[in-house]
Amino acid sequence: MNNHIVIMAGGIGSRFWPLSTPEYPKQFIDILGCGRTLIQLTVDRFEGLCPKENFWVVTNAAYVDIVKEQLPDMPASHILAEPAARNTAPCIAWACWRIRQEDATANVVVTPADAVVMNPVEFRRVLGNALAFTEKSDAIVTVGIKPSRPETGYGYVEVDSGKRDAGSGEIRRVASFKEKPSREVAEQYLQAGNYLWNAGIFVWNVNTITAALSTYKPNIAADMDRMKTDSDVQEVFPQVEKISIDYAVMEPAAADGKVYTHPADFGWSDLGNWASLHDKLQKDGAGNGAVGNVHMYECRDCVVHAEEAEKVVLQGLDGYIVSAKGGRILVCKRSEEQRIKEFSA
Amino acid sequence: MNNHIVIMAGGIGSRFWPLSTPEYPKQFIDILGCGRTLIQLTVDRFEGLCPKENFWVVTNAAYVDIVKEQLPDMPASHILAEPAARNTAPCIAWACWRIRQEDATANVVVTPADAVVMNPVEFRRVLGNALAFTEKSDAIVTVGIKPSRPETGYGYVEVDSGKRDAGSGEIRRVASFKEKPSREVAEQYLQAGNYLWNAGIFVWNVNTITAALSTYKPNIAADMDRMKTDSDVQEVFPQVEKISIDYAVMEPAAADGKVYTHPADFGWSDLGNWASLHDKLQKDGAGNGAVGNVHMYECRDCVVHAEEAEKVVLQGLDGYIVSAKGGRILVCKRSEEQRIKEFSA
Repeated sequence: MNNHIVIMAGGIGSRFWPLSTPEYPKQFIDILGCGRTLIQLTVDRFEGLCPKENFWVVTNAAYVDIVKEQLPDMPASHILAEPAARNTAPCIAWACWRIRQEDATANVVVTPADAVVMNPVEFRRVLGNALAFTEKSDAIVTVGIKPSRPETGYGYVEVDSGKRDAGSGEIRRVASFKEKPSREVAEQYLQAGNYLWNAGIFVWNVNTITAALSTYKPNIAADMDRMKTDSDVQEVFPQVEKISIDYAVMEPAAADGKVYTHPADFGWSDLGNWASLHDKLQKDGAGNGAVGNVHMYECRDCVVHAEEAEKVVLQGLDGYIVSAKGGRILVCKRSEEQRIKEFSA
Repeated sequence: MNNHIVIMAGGIGSRFWPLSTPEYPKQFIDILGCGRTLIQLTVDRFEGLCPKENFWVVTNAAYVDIVKEQLPDMPASHILAEPAARNTAPCIAWACWRIRQEDATANVVVTPADAVVMNPVEFRRVLGNALAFTEKSDAIVTVGIKPSRPETGYGYVEVDSGKRDAGSGEIRRVASFKEKPSREVAEQYLQAGNYLWNAGIFVWNVNTITAALSTYKPNIAADMDRMKTDSDVQEVFPQVEKISIDYAVMEPAAADGKVYTHPADFGWSDLGNWASLHDKLQKDGAGNGAVGNVHMYECRDCVVHAEEAEKVVLQGLDGYIVSAKGGRILVCKRSEEQRIKEFSA
């Protein structure tokens, strides 16, 4: 098996304070209360697609020990510790340059560490299709989630409805990438039917992505060529252009007709906010979703996460977030969750 | 100085869960956030009235170590560990029998451990008057708090408005004790002007109280005479009649014209519930009273106690109790505080 999985785990998850903190962010938390953290669930869902020794994690240097603790089967040399956060293009470039050193024919999936997938069987089927496609082609594949609502919090992938090569099997060529839309535009996308959510899950073979970076971002490719030792990494990486893989590669490559998408429906969520967590948690009859020893009286539509607490009693709360961790407690209305960064300061 | 202070510290404070628990009840907590626990404040307010070696604490055996820690100047032999809770009459009787062994002329104040007094200077003046009165007489004095509202949560002391000896100085004879009244009756008491709140603070010389117990509760007096060793205490005390000092002594003694009261106004509260704590805490402009590192946004009329928490953020709460301690968290409407025992079960 020459499949490799790259897990991007550098986020700080500030919207979930105090559950998630810069010291211990959400990808390392059992946010669903299922006994596995988000990064562990991310590894779990690739079972059978990739041997354990082919997993890679790119994360902040501060989180290396947490990764080792939570993923003890991960080869230590596959944990890439970023000396600074430079967005996704440098992160992915570094991982792919390193993979190429070990396996020049590697076939690669890049995935965030903090999304959830409710149907891992379907996930494996879709990723298996995409990996089979990129093994035999120089295509760039992004997984496109079939939208269930006019979501304004995600970027979109526009599927090419023209006459160009339609891809293979379920895989379709991408016409363009779209930024997070307004509500009105999101509704048009939903109605049009050929727009998918960009889940940030990418599939390609290692020669395709390194060549694409050399073509579209030769400065980043040159920086990667300079990073031969740990001290090179310390010196060079913090200076690499700070840019997302979407801007650096996906958009120009899509314009060149080189990007494909596999439409998918496997219960994906990026768990980007409390609303999406509430959506994914099992709810009681009054719409409350809770993780921890939580006792609720006359509460409705609350989302509660307090796995460390010995006992939590809530009474008379309607539409609140309650979160407790490490001696920090938050109670706020769900409608005010965009202020959590302010609250945590 | 032959003044002695007996502090009754056996309560479990179940209405303040999780701030107060049976393992660590409210008298041992810094409930006002002032840096001193309630039992420490109780000792503090007698400063100058009584030497440190004349303090006594009667408490449950489970709390002896907490008392030693919080009151390091207290003589260890003056911490009386009840093998079982038998209400206030046996508690007071035991302390007074022990005091009489050390000082047959002792003049004694008995006080709960968990009340607060906002004006300790006035408190000392009142108690000084009462002690001076009982030093020279066989009177039983109870401190009567001038009522500021038609409170239904306290018992009342009826001041004798008849022609009998009116007492000495501010001290007045008591006609009768009254149980917690209905709202209507409480309003009549307030209007009548000669009803005071029974604060459960008693003053007498040791011969007066031991004689009164021998008269009104000879069975309790006989049990006390049998308690000569620790093992006697273990055997006898759990069998002593379980009865309050009010029923055992105060009511029959008042009927015999032997009870006096010192009307007082020193900002007393028994801190019996969250409403009384809210009343005593300093409030912000929106009526919130909080102890701990508590940050409130769009909150009104809340009472919060979370001294252990590193940081608490509350948003959009109107009229709630928020309490956190030892990994337990409570959020409930202030109007529902009578259900806290149920919530803690």
